[in-house]
Amino acid sequence: MIIVNNRELRLDAARERRTGIAEAVFAPGKTPQQCADAVAGLLATTAGPVVLTRATPAQVRTAQVRATQVRATQVRATQVRAMQAIADEATVTETGPHLTVTWRKAPSRVGVVALVTAGTADLPVAREAEAVLSAYGIGTDLVADAGVAGLHRIIDQTAALKSADVVIVVAGMEGALASVVAGLTAAPVVAVPTSVGYGAALAGITALLAMLASCSPGITVVGIDNGFGAACAALRILNRDRLDGPLE
Amino acid sequence: MIIVNNRELRLDAARERRTGIAEAVFAPGKTPQQCADAVAGLLATTAGPVVLTRATPAQVRTAQVRATQVRATQVRATQVRAMQAIADEATVTETGPHLTVTWRKAPSRVGVVALVTAGTADLPVAREAEAVLSAYGIGTDLVADAGVAGLHRIIDQTAALKSADVVIVVAGMEGALASVVAGLTAAPVVAVPTSVGYGAALAGITALLAMLASCSPGITVVGIDNGFGAACAALRILNRDRLDGPLE
Amino acid sequence: MIIVNNRELRLDAARERRTGIAEAVFAPGKTPQQCADAVAGLLATTAGPVVLTRATPAQVRTAQVRATQVRATQVRATQVRAMQAIADEATVTETGPHLTVTWRKAPSRVGVVALVTAGTADLPVAREAEAVLSAYGIGTDLVADAGVAGLHRIIDQTAALKSADVVIVVAGMEGALASVVAGLTAAPVVAVPTSVGYGAALAGITALLAMLASCSPGITVVGIDNGFGAACAALRILNRDRLDGPLE
Amino acid sequence: MIIVNNRELRLDAARERRTGIAEAVFAPGKTPQQCADAVAGLLATTAGPVVLTRATPAQVRTAQVRATQVRATQVRATQVRAMQAIADEATVTETGPHLTVTWRKAPSRVGVVALVTAGTADLPVAREAEAVLSAYGIGTDLVADAGVAGLHRIIDQTAALKSADVVIVVAGMEGALASVVAGLTAAPVVAVPTSVGYGAALAGITALLAMLASCSPGITVVGIDNGFGAACAALRILNRDRLDGPLE
Amino acid sequence: MIIVNNRELRLDAARERRTGIAEAVFAPGKTPQQCADAVAGLLATTAGPVVLTRATPAQVRTAQVRATQVRATQVRATQVRAMQAIADEATVTETGPHLTVTWRKAPSRVGVVALVTAGTADLPVAREAEAVLSAYGIGTDLVADAGVAGLHRIIDQTAALKSADVVIVVAGMEGALASVVAGLTAAPVVAVPTSVGYGAALAGITALLAMLASCSPGITVVGIDNGFGAACAALRILNRDRLDGPLE
Amino acid sequence: MIIVNNRELRLDAARERRTGIAEAVFAPGKTPQQCADAVAGLLATTAGPVVLTRATPAQVRTAQVRATQVRATQVRATQVRAMQAIADEATVTETGPHLTVTWRKAPSRVGVVALVTAGTADLPVAREAEAVLSAYGIGTDLVADAGVAGLHRIIDQTAALKSADVVIVVAGMEGALASVVAGLTAAPVVAVPTSVGYGAALAGITALLAMLASCSPGITVVGIDNGFGAACAALRILNRDRLDGPLE
Amino acid sequence: MIIVNNRELRLDAARERRTGIAEAVFAPGKTPQQCADAVAGLLATTAGPVVLTRATPAQVRTAQVRATQVRATQVRATQVRAMQAIADEATVTETGPHLTVTWRKAPSRVGVVALVTAGTADLPVAREAEAVLSAYGIGTDLVADAGVAGLHRIIDQTAALKSADVVIVVAGMEGALASVVAGLTAAPVVAVPTSVGYGAALAGITALLAMLASCSPGITVVGIDNGFGAACAALRILNRDRLDGPLE
Amino acid sequence: MIIVNNRELRLDAARERRTGIAEAVFAPGKTPQQCADAVAGLLATTAGPVVLTRATPAQVRTAQVRATQVRATQVRATQVRAMQAIADEATVTETGPHLTVTWRKAPSRVGVVALVTAGTADLPVAREAEAVLSAYGIGTDLVADAGVAGLHRIIDQTAALKSADVVIVVAGMEGALASVVAGLTAAPVVAVPTSVGYGAALAGITALLAMLASCSPGITVVGIDNGFGAACAALRILNRDRLDGPLE
Repeated sequence: MIIVNNRELRLDAARERRTGIAEAVFAPGKTPQQCADAVAGLLATTAGPVVLTRATPAQVRTAQVRATQVRATQVRATQVRAMQAIADEATVTETGPHLTVTWRKAPSRVGVVALVTAGTADLPVAREAEAVLSAYGIGTDLVADAGVAGLHRIIDQTAALKSADVVIVVAGMEGALASVVAGLTAAPVVAVPTSVGYGAALAGITALLAMLASCSPGITVVGIDNGFGAACAALRILNRDRLDGPLE
Repeated sequence: MIIVNNRELRLDAARERRTGIAEAVFAPGKTPQQCADAVAGLLATTAGPVVLTRATPAQVRTAQVRATQVRATQVRATQVRAMQAIADEATVTETGPHLTVTWRKAPSRVGVVALVTAGTADLPVAREAEAVLSAYGIGTDLVADAGVAGLHRIIDQTAALKSADVVIVVAGMEGALASVVAGLTAAPVVAVPTSVGYGAALAGITALLAMLASCSPGITVVGIDNGFGAACAALRILNRDRLDGPLE
Repeated sequence: MIIVNNRELRLDAARERRTGIAEAVFAPGKTPQQCADAVAGLLATTAGPVVLTRATPAQVRTAQVRATQVRATQVRATQVRAMQAIADEATVTETGPHLTVTWRKAPSRVGVVALVTAGTADLPVAREAEAVLSAYGIGTDLVADAGVAGLHRIIDQTAALKSADVVIVVAGMEGALASVVAGLTAAPVVAVPTSVGYGAALAGITALLAMLASCSPGITVVGIDNGFGAACAALRILNRDRLDGPLE
Repeated sequence: MIIVNNRELRLDAARERRTGIAEAVFAPGKTPQQCADAVAGLLATTAGPVVLTRATPAQVRTAQVRATQVRATQVRATQVRAMQAIADEATVTETGPHLTVTWRKAPSRVGVVALVTAGTADLPVAREAEAVLSAYGIGTDLVADAGVAGLHRIIDQTAALKSADVVIVVAGMEGALASVVAGLTAAPVVAVPTSVGYGAALAGITALLAMLASCSPGITVVGIDNGFGAACAALRILNRDRLDGPLE
Repeated sequence: MIIVNNRELRLDAARERRTGIAEAVFAPGKTPQQCADAVAGLLATTAGPVVLTRATPAQVRTAQVRATQVRATQVRATQVRAMQAIADEATVTETGPHLTVTWRKAPSRVGVVALVTAGTADLPVAREAEAVLSAYGIGTDLVADAGVAGLHRIIDQTAALKSADVVIVVAGMEGALASVVAGLTAAPVVAVPTSVGYGAALAGITALLAMLASCSPGITVVGIDNGFGAACAALRILNRDRLDGPLE
Repeated sequence: MIIVNNRELRLDAARERRTGIAEAVFAPGKTPQQCADAVAGLLATTAGPVVLTRATPAQVRTAQVRATQVRATQVRATQVRAMQAIADEATVTETGPHLTVTWRKAPSRVGVVALVTAGTADLPVAREAEAVLSAYGIGTDLVADAGVAGLHRIIDQTAALKSADVVIVVAGMEGALASVVAGLTAAPVVAVPTSVGYGAALAGITALLAMLASCSPGITVVGIDNGFGAACAALRILNRDRLDGPLE
Repeated sequence: MIIVNNRELRLDAARERRTGIAEAVFAPGKTPQQCADAVAGLLATTAGPVVLTRATPAQVRTAQVRATQVRATQVRATQVRAMQAIADEATVTETGPHLTVTWRKAPSRVGVVALVTAGTADLPVAREAEAVLSAYGIGTDLVADAGVAGLHRIIDQTAALKSADVVIVVAGMEGALASVVAGLTAAPVVAVPTSVGYGAALAGITALLAMLASCSPGITVVGIDNGFGAACAALRILNRDRLDGPLE
Repeated sequence: MIIVNNRELRLDAARERRTGIAEAVFAPGKTPQQCADAVAGLLATTAGPVVLTRATPAQVRTAQVRATQVRATQVRATQVRAMQAIADEATVTETGPHLTVTWRKAPSRVGVVALVTAGTADLPVAREAEAVLSAYGIGTDLVADAGVAGLHRIIDQTAALKSADVVIVVAGMEGALASVVAGLTAAPVVAVPTSVGYGAALAGITALLAMLASCSPGITVVGIDNGFGAACAALRILNRDRLDGPLE
């Protein structure tokens, strides 16, 4: 039996229809079994991609096993077979100390998101965004290691910044890259502060504040290291002409 | 002579072509004369709306006079006449303790931005966003006083939230409205924390942090009381298929 | 001999009579032996439940052994026999990385506390509250995983919220659930911010501030992750017509 | 015509039925006219007390005039006459730099709330709580200037603390009074940190943190200087056996 | 009599010889008379420029009068006459809400400091630096309004940045300009965060942290709005081959 | 009638006997009448000095009038006459923006407190300490304007630092003077951080933290700008062999 | 050879004569060899106790070996023999996760310090103070586990508080015990905030702020968990009539 | 093939020519392979020293192997041979918990940097600065363990402070040493706050703020524990007359 709702778990199956993005499973603080139940339940009750974020290897292993065992009594048998096939195809991405896992990748869609990072150490956060966008069928264009200390590295990429549908800027330390990028493109800019740096970088607080106080108008910001959130913000922008579900 | 660049002022006339939004004039810390020079210079060198934010009445008066005196030597005479006519039509909006002034309103365009506020005291920030969007020809749909303590007030407006191209949520205190709204719509959600509240509201820091840490995925956040920034973020989303200017 | 007061330990045996809740043993920073002495001393000198919070397995093991050895010279022999029987029945609950242990469960009493959590990761804190309430004979009603991103999950539980004598809301991240719950019920609402989340969640500070700055009037707040404190606050509310002890 | 809902105001008339406490009007950031409209609208659509908090004299004057002019077309004439009579009887309380105004005092009810303050300077916050409780028919017992530097001042009042149904502790500086009071009574303790003090008192943050980190179990805390919130928390506790309204 | 040292004032006359920069008079918290005594005392006991910072008009008036009255008994008469002539020539600069006053300008020296500001509102802080450098005979090159949202404004000035002996970058909001400038020049870069901005700019804290956490190596930072300190840092760099005084 | 205890005031008359220092009246947040009642009550019920701190001129005027009207019914007539005579002799000290007033100066006693300030702007806080110590009969030795940028200013005063019974160091900005002083003397060092400075001085927080984290062992610290507290700490040290009162 | 000063170590041998307390060795960040060199050097060049604080077992082992090998060429042979004998007698105290080690205990002196802790978990910090005081020959009187939730525990100890020469209060969480103790005694009160507690206790910041903002006048505060500093503060108070060394 | 630019790495080879200091490799968050690629790429495309900071042993091992394998196709063979020879000579310095590695030491140049530390525990940060300066051919003069509690230790070194071209002050705890040093020398002073200390030292924040708020004019500050940044700031000062590269 697929556990969709029990004493500890209350899946929001309708969220996909309301917001265009299915509920994701946030792994920290959950037991491997709770992760697995949530993933399996979402596979059984939603139609699109399912995402598990910030998971440990143990949580991923359990979730993968569970996903392949989906045997739902409350769904049709054909649906079960389809789900099981999909479940086998978990995509696991290393995103820094965590793993991001996605199931049931959506078909490719129109739209490109430019992922710009200030340094190589910001890559894991960018990869979390990339994994989520990829699961939803959105292509990405990575512009890595483009910190403002060497401006030509980002100016050289202006064409990519201008042609993107959304630009996600991932930067730690002082986060100045977001201000520079927003001055070079008319695209929506979603800035992700990262905890890269030490001392006065304050584990990402400095980049966060800097992005919020930017002199470049129209930058929006998500939480520290929140590549998943940035991807969802991009999806909301790209989903605009596509969704049409009633509120539960 | 219109002062476009002098020892103290270096207008970024090309920003409009690069980012779809002309440089705006941030009034605090500028003398009335500096505000006036900047507004007049932008009217002379750009084609679209010009915006003055967070101004005092004295700054606005000087800027209005200056705008009507635009006598540019470096632009064509017909252009000057057109500008002067437009300059007379400054639109002044009371946005809390400040004034927001716009010149040369753009023609109406497709796209609707829903402006949702938690309480009546958040209105001035919403009005700043409204004034900027209106200057750029974007229509808005105001859903005011919809704080989560009485959920029906926001649930009743679900249709408006779902049909909007962008939803801007303006909320102080604990800022919970952003999380609730993002769960009800697939539209991009731009959250603006406000300094409404006292004590533990920490002049907007609490709402800011809460919006960044939201359990609803895909919310993006701008700075505290930054209605102007939220409007610019919405413009970036709505401008996507419209712009095409070379980088200066 | 039961150590009730020594150079390092000064049990407040009269607290139970004064406040309706016996002194609890806060394990961090205590040696296993100090934990054991405090538990045994409280079992020997009080009449109701004894609680050990945030303990490690080593602290629990020592305390359990000690509790079964209670041989008090300063109490009556019959009392000792009764205590020993009770001591064997330690109830151990996993509450996140810590253990909560209770001894000598009180008889069931009238009153129901609704325990509402925003997400599955908030469960350990809710369980700490549950363990303490249960030790004092109070029944609980768990409404888990009811975060505001999917409002129906909490609206569906309105009946439970309205019929509860006290509602404890346990939420991390932005803590918006407390505001929503308080708008749905007339019951006393005790909010517990948790350290669930990362980055801008600031290890619970964000939820804490948000709950304190809530737009829903009448919410009260306890410390971050303090499920024990929330249970005690509920006990104070439920104890109102029951207590009658002189101040020491 | 009474403005109950307009573009800027969306009264939550059903909140009284849902939570036992009608929506209150938070004055800061509202124009006097907006305050007046909200007060008049609430008088027209609710049955119990109406409260305006943290108002300036100008806001109060406008609200009083408006309240006496209530001429509702959407309510019955007899209801209007009753309201008008009540509206004349606004009760204005000086609560520090602000005014708290209440209309339509409820009949006296069973229940006593002890209001304990650490110093004379904490009185305005206690008076805000007192004004709200009084409007709802709850009697209060003031124990002022009982700071812990002279312990006998609070120990002498133990009887009052023990017999109260709820104890509200109002304290600034280091807020230690809450910890001491909670050790002397079994009643629910609602602590209100105040901004009394200077320098390291951090405008109330210090008292707030101290109350949350108290060693006395079961203290709950509301926001800094939030006497209104403390009163509402007490009302929720005292309302427990009285309410029975359907959710809107 | 010139008051050089009294109960309240203890001038450090030897500082000029030890550090190359005479003690300056920090006006806030001093009475006009105390300011005047300090200025007059320094004119009487030192050889180079004397600086009064962050003064009010009242403080400046009193200091000017006092400076012209210098009649020292402990210095030679010819010295007095020279001082008095110089004292008449106070140079008053408006530096935001404060005034900076300098006396006894030093002869021009080799060395150029580039003063770069992000926006027009940062000018007052830059002007404080300019006034101090000018008093010490150092020429400045102002590059104002060069914020990173329009990169060409600073890239166009690369020659000035490269030829300067020291570059002082003055920026509020997110302070990104410092990172960009340091990537364009080999000169020493002294960054001054300003309190320009609002909300998340945190009165300069955000720019301060961002400058400290910059990805561009070799930036040094002084306090918020501390144009005086930046000028002194530049003087220390330019003074390197010039000083030779024994420690008092 | 002298108001010693009423609904709003609960004087701790026994504090003088318990702690050697009578309750002082903290003026902020009190009405002039409340200040006056407290001062008069303390004059009537205690034997030593009475202190009013951080008062406005209005509060002082009212308190002075009231003090001269002391006509107590519950004290002996001779006592009244003595008090009235003393009350006329209020000593008013300007301590920055506030006034400190003392009544009934104690006879001079053995013991000297060195008051060391970093700059002239720190004097008002030092004067508050001086006024309180003087009221209690303790002599002081002022070493002003001895900031560490010119070390000889403090090294020159080593003899004073060594012979003092207590050294109070008053410093804002970075507060380094406390560390230096504590390395030069064996006397108890009480450090008072002040709010002198701006920007990164964080209104005294920086000096406070620096004094607490000092590398010089044995420094103790009181609150920001708390000259009164420092004086009381010194009194406790000097009172050691003098007191002998039973606990109330 | 005893290393007293080398490239990395510059012992302040004269500090003992200047301040009454020899330089102590702060272990964190030092290699075991650096700790050992410092301890040995101090044993060779000073006359009184030597203290090593916050050391790991490895640091202690190395320091002990080194101390027993003291073979100084620059000191007299008899002195060497005396030192070696003393060095063998290192006293190691467990002070939480760290070790405090003292060598060459001073003869007992007049004076008693009361060490009061709020809870058992505060004991390690109190023990650090105890170890240092004991090394200097000062007796202590431990009053442990006297938190204010059970006031009688501290009121019962009033005699000890009154007879002590200095009272050191060690408390975490909300640190209220310091305020209560200072109201019960005329002795100097040195408060030590500890990092005991979790969440809103903010690792000791809450107790620190509360102690600084106390309503009880005359409390002085040292850094978080700084039992060593509190002991030194007490020594300064007790040393007053004993010292007489020239400044180096 | 040497990887100079790939999907994850975008070396800024021209930075050396623009700023006088080649891009350094910041190890945290990079895989060993990414570190190695960056080091090898920089060796192949730049002429001066290459620096790897804050590396783990694993990162260093991989980088060393890679550096010795440099076989660039895009550079001349003779250049490759030269590089390989140099690559073997990696200099590894222990800088606290991290390693700093430099390759291709530059010839010795004129200029001396004084490195002053407050305590032995600050040495690792000073050593990071020393390693970088040494790689660039700059000599250093170490003045260690010169904390202000024993002033003679720093006053004795005044000659070294005065003759240095730049003084770098490395201090944790309260960071007072920077203020004292800047009062003793006319040289440029670069202050590095360190995370040495505990509790109120706030992991370096206290020293950072204190240095920024210093009463000694002209101190500049870099980030917490940022010895690398201080060295680069010194290089910028020393490089002034040496550089001459075009902007890429």
